[in-house]
Amino acid sequence: MTRNIYLNNVSVEEAKKKWYSALELKRATEKIDIRDALDRITAEPIVAKVSAPHYHASAMDGIAVKAEKTAGASEKNPIKLEKDKDYQMIDTGDPIPEVFNAVIMIEDVNRISEEIVEIEKGATPWQHVRTVGESLVKGELILPANHQISPYDIGLVLDGGVIEVKVYSQPQVQIIPTGTELVEPGASLKPGNIIEFNSQVLAKLVQKWGGKAVRKKIIPDNYQEIKAEVSRAVAEMDLVVVTAGSSAGSEDYTAQILAELGEVFVHGVSMKPGGPVILARIGNTPVIGVPGYPVAAALTFRLFARSVIYKLAGKVEEEEDRKVKAKIVSKVLSSLGFREFLRVKLSELDGEVVATPLARSSGVMGSLVEADGLVAISEFSEGLNSKEEVEVELLKDRVRAEKTLLSAGSNDLTLDILKDELAGTGFDFITKSTGSLGGLTALKRRETHLAGTHLLDPETGEYNFSYLKNLFKNREIMLVNLVYREQGLMFRKDNSKKIQGFEDLAKEDLLFINRQRGAGTRVLLDYMLKEKGINPEQINGYDRIEYTHMTLAAAIASGGADTGLGILAAAQAFDLDFIPIAKERYDLAIPREYWEDERIQVLLKVLRSDEFKERVNKLSGYDTSKTGQVIKHE
Amino acid sequence: MTRNIYLNNVSVEEAKKKWYSALELKRATEKIDIRDALDRITAEPIVAKVSAPHYHASAMDGIAVKAEKTAGASEKNPIKLEKDKDYQMIDTGDPIPEVFNAVIMIEDVNRISEEIVEIEKGATPWQHVRTVGESLVKGELILPANHQISPYDIGLVLDGGVIEVKVYSQPQVQIIPTGTELVEPGASLKPGNIIEFNSQVLAKLVQKWGGKAVRKKIIPDNYQEIKAEVSRAVAEMDLVVVTAGSSAGSEDYTAQILAELGEVFVHGVSMKPGGPVILARIGNTPVIGVPGYPVAAALTFRLFARSVIYKLAGKVEEEEDRKVKAKIVSKVLSSLGFREFLRVKLSELDGEVVATPLARSSGVMGSLVEADGLVAISEFSEGLNSKEEVEVELLKDRVRAEKTLLSAGSNDLTLDILKDELAGTGFDFITKSTGSLGGLTALKRRETHLAGTHLLDPETGEYNFSYLKNLFKNREIMLVNLVYREQGLMFRKDNSKKIQGFEDLAKEDLLFINRQRGAGTRVLLDYMLKEKGINPEQINGYDRIEYTHMTLAAAIASGGADTGLGILAAAQAFDLDFIPIAKERYDLAIPREYWEDERIQVLLKVLRSDEFKERVNKLSGYDTSKTGQVIKHE
Repeated sequence: MTRNIYLNNVSVEEAKKKWYSALELKRATEKIDIRDALDRITAEPIVAKVSAPHYHASAMDGIAVKAEKTAGASEKNPIKLEKDKDYQMIDTGDPIPEVFNAVIMIEDVNRISEEIVEIEKGATPWQHVRTVGESLVKGELILPANHQISPYDIGLVLDGGVIEVKVYSQPQVQIIPTGTELVEPGASLKPGNIIEFNSQVLAKLVQKWGGKAVRKKIIPDNYQEIKAEVSRAVAEMDLVVVTAGSSAGSEDYTAQILAELGEVFVHGVSMKPGGPVILARIGNTPVIGVPGYPVAAALTFRLFARSVIYKLAGKVEEEEDRKVKAKIVSKVLSSLGFREFLRVKLSELDGEVVATPLARSSGVMGSLVEADGLVAISEFSEGLNSKEEVEVELLKDRVRAEKTLLSAGSNDLTLDILKDELAGTGFDFITKSTGSLGGLTALKRRETHLAGTHLLDPETGEYNFSYLKNLFKNREIMLVNLVYREQGLMFRKDNSKKIQGFEDLAKEDLLFINRQRGAGTRVLLDYMLKEKGINPEQINGYDRIEYTHMTLAAAIASGGADTGLGILAAAQAFDLDFIPIAKERYDLAIPREYWEDERIQVLLKVLRSDEFKERVNKLSGYDTSKTGQVIKHE
Repeated sequence: MTRNIYLNNVSVEEAKKKWYSALELKRATEKIDIRDALDRITAEPIVAKVSAPHYHASAMDGIAVKAEKTAGASEKNPIKLEKDKDYQMIDTGDPIPEVFNAVIMIEDVNRISEEIVEIEKGATPWQHVRTVGESLVKGELILPANHQISPYDIGLVLDGGVIEVKVYSQPQVQIIPTGTELVEPGASLKPGNIIEFNSQVLAKLVQKWGGKAVRKKIIPDNYQEIKAEVSRAVAEMDLVVVTAGSSAGSEDYTAQILAELGEVFVHGVSMKPGGPVILARIGNTPVIGVPGYPVAAALTFRLFARSVIYKLAGKVEEEEDRKVKAKIVSKVLSSLGFREFLRVKLSELDGEVVATPLARSSGVMGSLVEADGLVAISEFSEGLNSKEEVEVELLKDRVRAEKTLLSAGSNDLTLDILKDELAGTGFDFITKSTGSLGGLTALKRRETHLAGTHLLDPETGEYNFSYLKNLFKNREIMLVNLVYREQGLMFRKDNSKKIQGFEDLAKEDLLFINRQRGAGTRVLLDYMLKEKGINPEQINGYDRIEYTHMTLAAAIASGGADTGLGILAAAQAFDLDFIPIAKERYDLAIPREYWEDERIQVLLKVLRSDEFKERVNKLSGYDTSKTGQVIKHE
């Protein structure tokens, strides 16, 4: 147990200050062809070498004339001009012959004979002539230094006779993935193996920020090998990143190695996700060690390394730090002493831009994929109140709050299909698996546009209506059917525990797995247990929960439990056996006041489309005969 | 004179409708490694092949335990655990051994001996365990179709065990530059030669929009050669662009060739810039002919071809069409019957976002380089009123109105240096050469933040003060010195017209070139002429004007005129001889109410910096002894 569990926990600002003030970043420059310089940053002003035009050029197709010779021409008194002597044909861009000083558009020229033309209006001197330098004058500034080169810029630089330009070199960043547990994507997976993808995410971020990433093979948790690779890298690179090994596990060597080779300024930052980050310098090369959890890796890298890459690349940082105001859609609790970077999705709800918190676990990469931005919760705060105004630092270039539809409630596989179909029409669909009752509660609290629900009322045997009636007194809620679906018990095909029906759930050697409180499936379970006279306390695992049908199925498939209640499609996805228990109605609850919203209208269109129903019907256990229909209480 | 001068002039909408409805665009797809797929668009939903984690994994560094064995532990009654029997060391990510079902963090474990540890708090079942599928469940949707792939997405896709993904192929676009007058960048220039850069701009736009551009060598205006190249291109490409030859000049073959090979749907659109655009189809390949003027080429390509590339690339178009509201800063006249696309720069002025129109000529590429966006002036409108609200379609990803400083007035070479220095601090500096009086008038009309002025009062011999007093009754204007500078007569070094001083300007064989009305330099000229008793009517060329010192010098250097009044630095830039006439004070006039604005403060800081003065002093004819100082009336 030789563990270095004592990290210093400094604040984000202190960590930045300590590291940045110790770094001496030198920006390299290089000369490249402007035609290869899209998106690069100028390292010096670019000045025109030639004027454009560099000669007096015709601005029109027409005839070149001497203005004096055309004076007085009118409709009543047209003037005849003789070829070569008085005029010359000229096309746009042609040089004006020295003897002429104006151009008349071809549309204003009447042809009389092969040689003679007639005009009805005089020309003013230099009319329709682009004089030298009209567009750009030799010596004029084309682009300032520290400017990111656009397609149009490339045109103007070439226009000014410049080909070679001095730009900042792209910073070279090596990413060293370490960890004995890591395997390359595509390798066959054994328990304990983790697919290494952090280095790929960081490499792509480096690319987006204007650097060049080098990623070599995974190095196992071997002190000597890691040290050798870091030593090699710092000699050649502008920045070195070691992924993982930054924590306090028994094989976390990164901090020790960096301290031996150079100086460690920070080990541990009081932030979530991402505490155990290491900020160091070896020789003149900055080195950062990031945690292994993917969200922590990406966020700490962004928070600390982006500035370094920007600075080396010659980019002005503040451009990326775009912030928007939004209201946090629901209450969020957070720990004192840690700055939490909450991933949020932005949407327009009840006329305001709201931020919906996404999964907070550092391991859930999906939360970063869906996030529009980050909300920093102060280390001096215990959280955010519902509808509190927050500042959102955007992670995406374009955020389309008004095209984002929020959904909460019961989990179902067809919601994925809905999401995919909506994406095709340009809409984002964010679903939160909160269980049916959680969804309706979120709807009541105005945290979502709609809720998915399949709540059985044991009294009436009906779905959803009685719950809506109880929860929504003064608000009309529409019910639109998503699907009918089959619920049942799922178990591994070997059926070693000999499950034959509901009655077996009370068996002592059977490990059950349940859904969370408020989930429609749990309501169904409790209803069935009551019917069969089984006491929940008899069921081994009644209190162990999963939040979705798929994670429940995964737990059973992996042997973590023997059986649980869920939908047929999930059982089939994990190749489990299934005993049907009930066919239930799953509806989307949509407040009447959102009905005309473009997003709801598009949703209804998708629900009612043949494409959607066909895709649902390819899964097992679904009935789409009422899909998209408004369900009325009878 | 075989010219095809009759273009049909259809509206933008009609042109789009005619062309788009005739095209049958087929999106190709390809399978690529997700690690090469940054920014590509998914062509089908991506679904997880494995769960993540795919085994029950420890979420912490610590010990794996049986939860039941730890029940009841407290500070007063710690529980001892024996290695292997009751616990096992475990690192984050390690699989939970089958016999255990919870993890206790290392921080909460007291080591008693080599084998024995003590805990003071019980573990709940599955505490600190990432159960199978916590992050991602096999079969779950990772990314919908038609989604642009981000760095984070790449991580999640790999996390889900997916490597190969189906994306839309990048549309292949060939750009064919045509024109006998065109030369490749870097070629030596003769009169009539034009550097070909339109193809480079279009190629880079294609790249930005998600396509792949092929650009081959320039083809002269040779009917057969162009036809052969177009035929070759349409067989292989998704889109073919012919630059220039689309107009009505005597060597404009494009429309004819496209009509022979396929079908031309539109030839001529009622828009400015960019009328003579050709929209055609050959076989199944869309072909567009764009005008030769660079702004027209870029804007028509953007207006008509972007949708085609987006559609082929699988991109959702509306994302790019971002619009913001702004007030047009000054009155703009426009022609009825043409939709004009005005290039504008956005800035924050008097608490509002204002749009400043940039150069309107179709040949001035700089107007596109500076523009933040486009304002479309309807074909049914004769223009825009000052401060009228307009919709600006953004051309840039990031617009920083609050970082943009507007300047109008007299032209000077040191303004380029100022612009470059300001760019280095993240500020945009937009200068309009309107002459000193024009600048002050713009300031009065609240069209600019500051004005550059060097207006001599003939009565007092003083600069600027009397003009400010007359123009600004109730507004305090500060004067900050930019430079003192030398004005004089410039002429070619051979001095074939034997210019020796001001008295020679009235010579009959001398061709003078003047600055525009309201320019301080013209005020100086008129003052000098009066002093010398010369009547402007005696001067040949008094009415011919240029707007800047540099274009004036360029006109003289090119032989377009013999002499004119301007600054020494411009004469030297064009290797002209120079007879000094006056040393004058050039100030920046800044309203008192803008003084505390961050932009003005940064401007003053730059003006007062040694770097700025040193760069100015490297030019000839400048005196920086008062640069950056507030000039007070004595």
